Amino acid sequence: MKSITAYAKKREEIHQNRGRMLISCPDRPGIVAAVSKFFSEQSANIVQSDQYSMDPEGGMFFMRIEFDLDNLANRLEGLKKHFGTIAESFMMDWSMHLAARKKKLAILVSKEDHCLLELLWQWQAGDLYADIEMVISNHEDMREQVESFGIPYYYVPVTADTKKEAEQKHLELISGKVDTIILARYMQIISPYFLQHYPNQIINIHHSFLPAFVGGKPYAQAYNRGVKLIGATAHYVTEELDGGPIIEQDVQRVSHRDNVDELKRIGRHIERIVLARAVKWHVEDRILVYQNKTVVFV
Amino acid sequence: MKSITAYAKKREEIHQNRGRMLISCPDRPGIVAAVSKFFSEQSANIVQSDQYSMDPEGGMFFMRIEFDLDNLANRLEGLKKHFGTIAESFMMDWSMHLAARKKKLAILVSKEDHCLLELLWQWQAGDLYADIEMVISNHEDMREQVESFGIPYYYVPVTADTKKEAEQKHLELISGKVDTIILARYMQIISPYFLQHYPNQIINIHHSFLPAFVGGKPYAQAYNRGVKLIGATAHYVTEELDGGPIIEQDVQRVSHRDNVDELKRIGRHIERIVLARAVKWHVEDRILVYQNKTVVFV
Amino acid sequence: MKSITAYAKKREEIHQNRGRMLISCPDRPGIVAAVSKFFSEQSANIVQSDQYSMDPEGGMFFMRIEFDLDNLANRLEGLKKHFGTIAESFMMDWSMHLAARKKKLAILVSKEDHCLLELLWQWQAGDLYADIEMVISNHEDMREQVESFGIPYYYVPVTADTKKEAEQKHLELISGKVDTIILARYMQIISPYFLQHYPNQIINIHHSFLPAFVGGKPYAQAYNRGVKLIGATAHYVTEELDGGPIIEQDVQRVSHRDNVDELKRIGRHIERIVLARAVKWHVEDRILVYQNKTVVFV
Amino acid sequence: MKSITAYAKKREEIHQNRGRMLISCPDRPGIVAAVSKFFSEQSANIVQSDQYSMDPEGGMFFMRIEFDLDNLANRLEGLKKHFGTIAESFMMDWSMHLAARKKKLAILVSKEDHCLLELLWQWQAGDLYADIEMVISNHEDMREQVESFGIPYYYVPVTADTKKEAEQKHLELISGKVDTIILARYMQIISPYFLQHYPNQIINIHHSFLPAFVGGKPYAQAYNRGVKLIGATAHYVTEELDGGPIIEQDVQRVSHRDNVDELKRIGRHIERIVLARAVKWHVEDRILVYQNKTVVFV
Repeated sequence: MKSITAYAKKREEIHQNRGRMLISCPDRPGIVAAVSKFFSEQSANIVQSDQYSMDPEGGMFFMRIEFDLDNLANRLEGLKKHFGTIAESFMMDWSMHLAARKKKLAILVSKEDHCLLELLWQWQAGDLYADIEMVISNHEDMREQVESFGIPYYYVPVTADTKKEAEQKHLELISGKVDTIILARYMQIISPYFLQHYPNQIINIHHSFLPAFVGGKPYAQAYNRGVKLIGATAHYVTEELDGGPIIEQDVQRVSHRDNVDELKRIGRHIERIVLARAVKWHVEDRILVYQNKTVVFV
Repeated sequence: MKSITAYAKKREEIHQNRGRMLISCPDRPGIVAAVSKFFSEQSANIVQSDQYSMDPEGGMFFMRIEFDLDNLANRLEGLKKHFGTIAESFMMDWSMHLAARKKKLAILVSKEDHCLLELLWQWQAGDLYADIEMVISNHEDMREQVESFGIPYYYVPVTADTKKEAEQKHLELISGKVDTIILARYMQIISPYFLQHYPNQIINIHHSFLPAFVGGKPYAQAYNRGVKLIGATAHYVTEELDGGPIIEQDVQRVSHRDNVDELKRIGRHIERIVLARAVKWHVEDRILVYQNKTVVFV
Repeated sequence: MKSITAYAKKREEIHQNRGRMLISCPDRPGIVAAVSKFFSEQSANIVQSDQYSMDPEGGMFFMRIEFDLDNLANRLEGLKKHFGTIAESFMMDWSMHLAARKKKLAILVSKEDHCLLELLWQWQAGDLYADIEMVISNHEDMREQVESFGIPYYYVPVTADTKKEAEQKHLELISGKVDTIILARYMQIISPYFLQHYPNQIINIHHSFLPAFVGGKPYAQAYNRGVKLIGATAHYVTEELDGGPIIEQDVQRVSHRDNVDELKRIGRHIERIVLARAVKWHVEDRILVYQNKTVVFV
Repeated sequence: MKSITAYAKKREEIHQNRGRMLISCPDRPGIVAAVSKFFSEQSANIVQSDQYSMDPEGGMFFMRIEFDLDNLANRLEGLKKHFGTIAESFMMDWSMHLAARKKKLAILVSKEDHCLLELLWQWQAGDLYADIEMVISNHEDMREQVESFGIPYYYVPVTADTKKEAEQKHLELISGKVDTIILARYMQIISPYFLQHYPNQIINIHHSFLPAFVGGKPYAQAYNRGVKLIGATAHYVTEELDGGPIIEQDVQRVSHRDNVDELKRIGRHIERIVLARAVKWHVEDRILVYQNKTVVFV
């Protein structure tokens, strides 16, 4: 069902020999020079480079590089090996990715379909460059719609008593097949056991402008407080409820006329846009996490 | 020093015979008909009418009317008297104002001048239709600037020990001369004793998107949480710290590159815009307060 | 396929006896009083009333009223008849609608599916309170998707030579079945003959911030001019290309990094949001047109 | 009168040994490596680097670097000389700046004071890191206010007949003293003769969202077209009226209620914010111009 748009096709070509690199390390002189010398020696062309220094004196340094190199798919492992020496001398946390190798997503969803549908639509339109490997839900409601996109749909019911079994089932489904998990309004709390398998790989959309209105029923909370803007927040999931590193947020104006139902309706539009942006940045390797905050190179 | 702009002059003319009315009451059929019949019988012309019903079945009803009536200044008291009967039968909380009678403001400020300057500039430009009767500060820093606008400046130092005396001094300065108090980044907490004299007449600007980051150092809090938007909130002051009815809020996008100093710089622009909007709505009798929330007819 | 959400169900109930009225007339004293007296005499309860006076002295006056009246469906015609006398004495252009009577839409679309999909989703979610009677396209591409929503899809090819026949075919399809036509990225110009049958009933989405970038390839135009924000505009269609009354506009920030393809991608999100808002306001009788401009009561 | 804030003081320190470099050249492999090798060899530390490639195959490449180097003020000329060889081999357009060397501004203004006041405030607050050498006006109105900031004010009247003499007078005033000219609502057209002396050094604020509403009375034009958002545009001045490279734009929502006076009032806030941002980016060497468009590294 997925049509290959002209836009998507063009991107496939660009991605063929494109690599991406993410680096975090203590700042000190010479990092950029060492890294760019490395790529120059490999005859790779740096086509995009972003960096951020928290503080040139003793802070952290973050870098993202996009580069082109002929025959990259076959040369990537060698490249990584060569880079190891530089990485070590600068005490780098780093990763190198083939742009053409799409991230593999599992989307978890409960009863609200708007965030899921947005991701499916952006995927179908070629805007979300990733493979959606499966949708998992604790309800059957969206099976037909999801399967019409040619995507497997797994129904894993969850009750207070079967929470552990359900998570075990999730792990079995995704293990080895998925590297990023999207909670697209999935209304179950993820256990620490599960989280430790996917650090900074689980993205949740919370339907408020965090840290305002943590926890349940944020639109009712917002209504009761009488705020004049409502928002949504996409973040990596950590053990602290709604407390993980924020990836993206946005808001929209509301007024006294908007009751809780209206806030929900308006909020749905913010949620799906915010989540889709966060997922897009994640699958394009644009996000670095440091001390519960994100550096996003857009 | 204040120049009368063409815009301000036009408004003076319009305001001459313009009245404004605010009504809150339990909703029930016939309110609008009774009110508009009243104005029709007085030969007043309704030029603007806004209303909001929380719930036609048993909710509250809010209304704001602007009307024109010849010789209004002399007839206002009579008009109020006549309206009393209608008001009583519908159990209305209500007020009627002569648009030409400007609200009298006292602005309290500490060391940050941006919110004060914005109000002074909007006042000078004729955008803020009010009389700024005085500026009171616990510092001497802004005397020269304020006095250059022809506005009295009172220096009332405050220490932990003299808090009570300082407030007493404030009350003496404003008593009988002022009907609205603006806390334009005034960094002292107002006592319950003071508050009860000015219910819904004290407007504060808090430098965060409430209810996020209540209390001190909100920009440092925002930086530490890694939010992607920062905001400001104008609200009426109540006994609960940063907990009063929100009048207006706005936000602006920030990124990982913005340290606390940058957040403050960006935030200053949001603060002054948000406070100025709230003050404008207040002096134009556009705000009704009900159960710690505002209805703002803009 | 359309699920009835709790939100939609609640609205059905509210709409049952709800009426809406739109009025335009020369301003003069007594209009509001006469109108509200009328509703009061009919024992109707005004639950929302908005008005706007261009200029109390000799300008136009615009009003929108929502009212509740028992058994409204059966009494609407009688109500209209009674109102005729008032309407005449104030020289009113006016209309009265039963909220429960949904507007009937035809959506015309070419090859870009995002605006159509947004409307289908919002309709399915119960946010768009209207009947989508049919989708008409000059391409076959979206048949399967549209039909999966249970909506008829008509393929009417258009060439330079068959433009007239195609329009005739359109008129046959919609005549008597449809009262609002949405051009959801339909890339054919509508003839004056067609337009005169549907004055202020055809809504188009133009993919620029009008009046900037009228006509073809607006994203390429925007790229070439180097604008820092791109936008979209929903407007009623008139004989002047992209010159009809503007209903809604919105924009989003772009940068030098965004090439034409990126502008299109970003623009798609603006287009669908802007069109959906305009359609929502239209089907809720919130828009009055006067001299090529709109008054929108939201 | 200018107070040195803690923020400004901290920045002075940072700026002491900070340099900035701007580069435009045809893209090809090895640019980043050559540039960063150069800085590494000079023992300079790159603290910020931004780049943009229009198209890795045959497009233009743009780069901005911030670097720290001990004793930079004395070494800058030597550094430039050394860089010449690299620059030549890559056919670079380039410039290197000492961050501590403030840009010298002349502000031209007519009768509207809001844009001027915003710049004066931001300068006074330490947010605008530049020297305002003078204000020139064709009216006397703002002399007192400007001089109270300790800034020279020159009154140069302009009539249809004296346009040429006035420009000559301007050139005399600014020649050798100023490197950037800000038209802060200066309502006179600048001659090609004047422009050629200051290419990409004259910034104008136009009170519309360009390219909509070029020329005179843009708020009246916007009102007549019935737009739902109004905007402002800061751009470098070229011979084509309102046609130069756009630096920054922003918009704000308006409604049918806003008449031309209200649009002007709302617009003033957009204008001053947009102009202030553009000036800030200019004085921080963040803007490159290429083919009537800007690359802005923020």
